[in-house]
Amino acid sequence: MRKVRVVGAAMTRFGKYVDRDLRDLAEEAVHNAIQDAGLDLKEVEAAYVGNSVAGLITGQETIRGQVVLRKTGLLGVPIVNVENACASASTAFHLGWIAVASGLYDCVLALGVEKLSDPDKAKSFRAFNSAVDIAELTEIEKKLGRSDEEAKERSLFMDLYLSMLNPDEPASREVVGGITREQMALVSVKNHYHGSMNPFAQYREEVTFEEVLKSRHVVGPLTVLMCSPLGDGAAAALIVSEEFAHRKGLKGPRVDASVLVSGRGDDRSMAPSIGRAATQAYEMAGIGPEDINLAEVHDAVAPAEITIYEDLRFCAPGDGPKLIEDRVTWLGGKLPVNTSGGLLARGHPIGATGLGQIVEVVWQLQGKAGKRQVENCKVGLTQNGGGHIGFDLAAMAVHIFSS
Amino acid sequence: MRKVRVVGAAMTRFGKYVDRDLRDLAEEAVHNAIQDAGLDLKEVEAAYVGNSVAGLITGQETIRGQVVLRKTGLLGVPIVNVENACASASTAFHLGWIAVASGLYDCVLALGVEKLSDPDKAKSFRAFNSAVDIAELTEIEKKLGRSDEEAKERSLFMDLYLSMLNPDEPASREVVGGITREQMALVSVKNHYHGSMNPFAQYREEVTFEEVLKSRHVVGPLTVLMCSPLGDGAAAALIVSEEFAHRKGLKGPRVDASVLVSGRGDDRSMAPSIGRAATQAYEMAGIGPEDINLAEVHDAVAPAEITIYEDLRFCAPGDGPKLIEDRVTWLGGKLPVNTSGGLLARGHPIGATGLGQIVEVVWQLQGKAGKRQVENCKVGLTQNGGGHIGFDLAAMAVHIFSS
Repeated sequence: MRKVRVVGAAMTRFGKYVDRDLRDLAEEAVHNAIQDAGLDLKEVEAAYVGNSVAGLITGQETIRGQVVLRKTGLLGVPIVNVENACASASTAFHLGWIAVASGLYDCVLALGVEKLSDPDKAKSFRAFNSAVDIAELTEIEKKLGRSDEEAKERSLFMDLYLSMLNPDEPASREVVGGITREQMALVSVKNHYHGSMNPFAQYREEVTFEEVLKSRHVVGPLTVLMCSPLGDGAAAALIVSEEFAHRKGLKGPRVDASVLVSGRGDDRSMAPSIGRAATQAYEMAGIGPEDINLAEVHDAVAPAEITIYEDLRFCAPGDGPKLIEDRVTWLGGKLPVNTSGGLLARGHPIGATGLGQIVEVVWQLQGKAGKRQVENCKVGLTQNGGGHIGFDLAAMAVHIFSS
Repeated sequence: MRKVRVVGAAMTRFGKYVDRDLRDLAEEAVHNAIQDAGLDLKEVEAAYVGNSVAGLITGQETIRGQVVLRKTGLLGVPIVNVENACASASTAFHLGWIAVASGLYDCVLALGVEKLSDPDKAKSFRAFNSAVDIAELTEIEKKLGRSDEEAKERSLFMDLYLSMLNPDEPASREVVGGITREQMALVSVKNHYHGSMNPFAQYREEVTFEEVLKSRHVVGPLTVLMCSPLGDGAAAALIVSEEFAHRKGLKGPRVDASVLVSGRGDDRSMAPSIGRAATQAYEMAGIGPEDINLAEVHDAVAPAEITIYEDLRFCAPGDGPKLIEDRVTWLGGKLPVNTSGGLLARGHPIGATGLGQIVEVVWQLQGKAGKRQVENCKVGLTQNGGGHIGFDLAAMAVHIFSS
């Protein structure tokens, strides 16, 4: 397979856009990615478009990519519409990578776009239900002990993440899977601090430790500042062969690993998806976790970020909390995580999130991250999970990039 | 890129399955494809799953592949959920082909599955609306002159196909785009005749010329027997590298071309998608239309099949009607088209259709087509379109296979 680079990366600011539709958001991201690359749109040979719930929110299904790209000048090229719940955009990127690495195309677009916010908030939350096996939705709600009222007020995934962190007992208000409320609060403080330096983040206000702990209670130990928000947005990347980049004088990080796996479902004897994906990614890149200089990870809820440290082998099992307490994963630390603000502060328009992560890592490796720039970074990783089935997330993508 | 073969192909009978869900249909197709190949399921390294409207019919979005494959033993491998309206399954196959041709995997599954039939028929028809740009749905309905009642009684696509055949004037009841009702009726007679020999076809009764003309009127010149029916079903193919096939002693047709394009949208200066896709496919395969021995094409309405003959260059422009009248495209003719029964008789569960076509061509090239076997066939083509945007279908896939 051929070597592949990302030569253009852009995103809208994530946020709640009452007056903008999917097309408008997509157009901004695509236009800016093309500008960022300094490329002619005519060079783009195919487009891979991730979106998760437009069908349920807006009624637009089946040709979402063609619809959002309709006025860009891209129609005519192959357009593939991709879904993998919160990992939709990473999956789109992965397909773009394969297509270029295969030799079929020299230059393709990966796009993620989502509009979650709706005047009827319960509609947005209902859309998340489509990311589990709906045949067992009632059973899942019952097992999690959620009332009908609660189902209207928060995403099922807040409860699911807690149950995954601590599968064998109900979440206490103090600690889940060995992670204390205080440690969770630190993750939120860090990610909001990072987000405060990111013009593309949904939330750009720092929050204090006390504010996180005292913010509205959601479920178990989680307060609202420990949960990723509803939001809208788009993110895009231009993926090209190394040979094409060289020929056109384009610069950008190399894709050293692009790995997608699905969850273990009901088979508890299989390793969870994140560990399998990470192992494959390190192997593909020919490096280890010790070589990673920064990472964007799937902090859908604050405690998840801490277990992800362990699952990605950034530390020994059980040592995750130390990384946040010792400020290893803060900007200025040895391995900054979620410099974009992560899902908590940059935001989580689910079908766009994976490319939001990739955009951040690409910008960091290009030295374009402004106030939140990680010094001397050479290798970055993204980890993006989506959906839930059985005892695991349903989809998991890990990518590694190097400058 | 590596050479690729299809070593397993299977489908459920297409039809209306009140008591079967998506998972049940998918499991039958996957199980039988694995059996057909004589392969161990453990060899499958990734799955590409096409579905178009489950989100709107059943509420299951975003992780449809993981859900339908949950109990097959496949969970753990990468699963990509793909949409491209009626071309979803061809798109899934195309992605599987790229992944194997690239060298990333040796053996992958492509699956298409759809459940369209619903006690509330209007719900099924509404789902088709999601295959146009819904921002202009009202405008499209108005332009086509459809009443609210008509919108509940038939798919928007029946009207859209007529408008594409004859863009500049309203469809008469006698002729559309130079094709007479009688010629359309012949297509229906042929495809139902073919379907009568296919155990996997939704409709297995022959129909007479008079029956077609006298069946319930739908719109313009179309009677109900000239329109593809609502239906459910699943179809699957196992795609492997030639080297893997050789090593494992597996047999199956080679993929000589796998082409996906999107429509021209609002740009009438661009050629329509079908011509562009066909040209690319012939080039990729290094052959011409004269080399094709059989084809499965997208006869969503009977007259479309005749224009497709011309668009695929099976004849000179304007000569399409001759092929049906002179029985060239009937079983026993020089170039049998839709030996499966086509969308009209085999059925059209939209997200499964593309693989239904591929299964038929694979079986034909393997000599497994029973009573409807095309003698001495060596090269087969499939053509599958999906969705509608501007002046064209939204997605178009053309594949060429050889034994």
